[in-house]
Amino acid sequence: MTHFADRLSAAVRLRGNPVLVGLDPRWEQLPQPLRAAGAAASLVHKADAYTQFCRGVIDAVAPLVAAVKPQSAFFEELGPAGMSALWEVIQHARRRGLLVILDGKRNDIGTTAAAYAAGYLGGDDASPWGADALTVSPYLGDDSLTPFMDVAKQRGTGIFVLVKTSNPGGKTFQDLHVEGKPLYEHVATFVEQQSAATLGTCGYGTVGAVVGATYPEQLGSLRAAMPHTWFLVPGFGAQRGSAHDVAGAFDERGLGAIVNNSRGIIFAHARAEFKDRFGDRRWQDAVEAATQEMICQLRADTAAGRLADGTGDKPDFSTQHDSG
Amino acid sequence: MTHFADRLSAAVRLRGNPVLVGLDPRWEQLPQPLRAAGAAASLVHKADAYTQFCRGVIDAVAPLVAAVKPQSAFFEELGPAGMSALWEVIQHARRRGLLVILDGKRNDIGTTAAAYAAGYLGGDDASPWGADALTVSPYLGDDSLTPFMDVAKQRGTGIFVLVKTSNPGGKTFQDLHVEGKPLYEHVATFVEQQSAATLGTCGYGTVGAVVGATYPEQLGSLRAAMPHTWFLVPGFGAQRGSAHDVAGAFDERGLGAIVNNSRGIIFAHARAEFKDRFGDRRWQDAVEAATQEMICQLRADTAAGRLADGTGDKPDFSTQHDSG
Repeated sequence: MTHFADRLSAAVRLRGNPVLVGLDPRWEQLPQPLRAAGAAASLVHKADAYTQFCRGVIDAVAPLVAAVKPQSAFFEELGPAGMSALWEVIQHARRRGLLVILDGKRNDIGTTAAAYAAGYLGGDDASPWGADALTVSPYLGDDSLTPFMDVAKQRGTGIFVLVKTSNPGGKTFQDLHVEGKPLYEHVATFVEQQSAATLGTCGYGTVGAVVGATYPEQLGSLRAAMPHTWFLVPGFGAQRGSAHDVAGAFDERGLGAIVNNSRGIIFAHARAEFKDRFGDRRWQDAVEAATQEMICQLRADTAAGRLADGTGDKPDFSTQHDSG
Repeated sequence: MTHFADRLSAAVRLRGNPVLVGLDPRWEQLPQPLRAAGAAASLVHKADAYTQFCRGVIDAVAPLVAAVKPQSAFFEELGPAGMSALWEVIQHARRRGLLVILDGKRNDIGTTAAAYAAGYLGGDDASPWGADALTVSPYLGDDSLTPFMDVAKQRGTGIFVLVKTSNPGGKTFQDLHVEGKPLYEHVATFVEQQSAATLGTCGYGTVGAVVGATYPEQLGSLRAAMPHTWFLVPGFGAQRGSAHDVAGAFDERGLGAIVNNSRGIIFAHARAEFKDRFGDRRWQDAVEAATQEMICQLRADTAAGRLADGTGDKPDFSTQHDSG
């Protein structure tokens, strides 16, 4: 079983960019052709639309990026039908060769944490859901994370532990000072220890960290303090984080961070800069163009530019396909 | 819409006890008749067995207790089939008049947290899942909890925020000292403020706290510091918490706390004291006897005894029914 961080490094190098596409379907924001049934559509109908939409996003971005991040909450919101849609979406992403980082922010204690880990982590029938990695919350402490780390190691999968989140209220508890430094740095120290103990050949471990793009200085200092930890960086785009803001998250090879963009990519058909050009009908072209745009920005303004040196393929805005 | 804390108070008073039955199905521990298909059973088969088992537990405890707590992890472990089972179990518990506290320890930011809240909280078609309350993790901070509190208020539902958990590793971050007191007390202060701002006529708010039974002294001091906050107390039974240990969680009326027991009740057929008496075939009778036993212990050793004064019904070990 190949080490998760090595699989992630290889996928990011192959694509030449660290873009992570967040799959956050919301009924009201789907392209018009997919929500023709209106707000009164049944949960099953909405779930089917989510599946169709996410498959379309995956098809558009699979040739361009290394990984997608389905947000479990939006599928759970639709009840059991939504969970079946989530399963379909994960399977489709895997078939298209994408790594799947499920954003569930799960955690619990002992054998309950083990049930989450066993259920979510691992493709090829290793688990029912088949994710390559799962986001995890740290509040329950070290023994709550152990079952996730054990399964991650056994199955060549990973976890990303919440360290410093991108929301304004992240400071409520994460920034409280403990022995002269904020709580999130204590969480960071724990995560880095676990990463350092589970290194792959790429120099990173199986335990990653979620660190928001909205705190650029903290990103840089955490990078220095956590040299063996992959970062999952949310907050780019709709949450106003820029390529400059995330520059500190990368190592000198352009590795060590994947940068998530959800709404800015998947709902690109509604963005001012793409609306007239593509409109609702060609929403997949808008997804592709927005992905290319983000790739360009990260290559221009961060060490991720070095990832592309070997590929020779520059993003091409002229490549478009009809979403039919 | 009746206030959640008032509904909980009324249900606890009606039953005359604060027992919360945790629904934590695990394949290996199901009574033999339900796992006849063996470990190689399909996920769908296992999910069906979980539904049948949990329905059986619900039928046994519905006349005795106020609420059940399905543990989402064990259903999620079975993939989409498990989620359908979870839905069935919640609906069955509602039909039997039980309050349902879903243990999912969810959290996220902004509209994502709102999706969890909208999806899980509220019966009678207010939400797809139909839970009366949800457990929530605090690490993401105040604005991550707001969407849950908003929906809880609107729909007469509640949340229970993790404050001090029952696992040994809970101390890793929860006990770190911030300005002279442990982190969990800062979380407790925040939760109490939210509870005090959302009071029902019973004197408690819609925002509860999870406080483990394995720390009796902290339970008592948190009770004093959080006079408007309902406690959900895990750790009784299998985790070695006793009735004496949880005594500090109650107010003088015997209200203010529900005490969870999962394995000690639902897998009572395998406990030494019930094994010979009931065996695997009469597992529902074992569930009922274990519930009655816990009710007796709590009435004898805590202020919950006062709840029973008006009912006149003492638990009766002779009432048994055949599980067929």
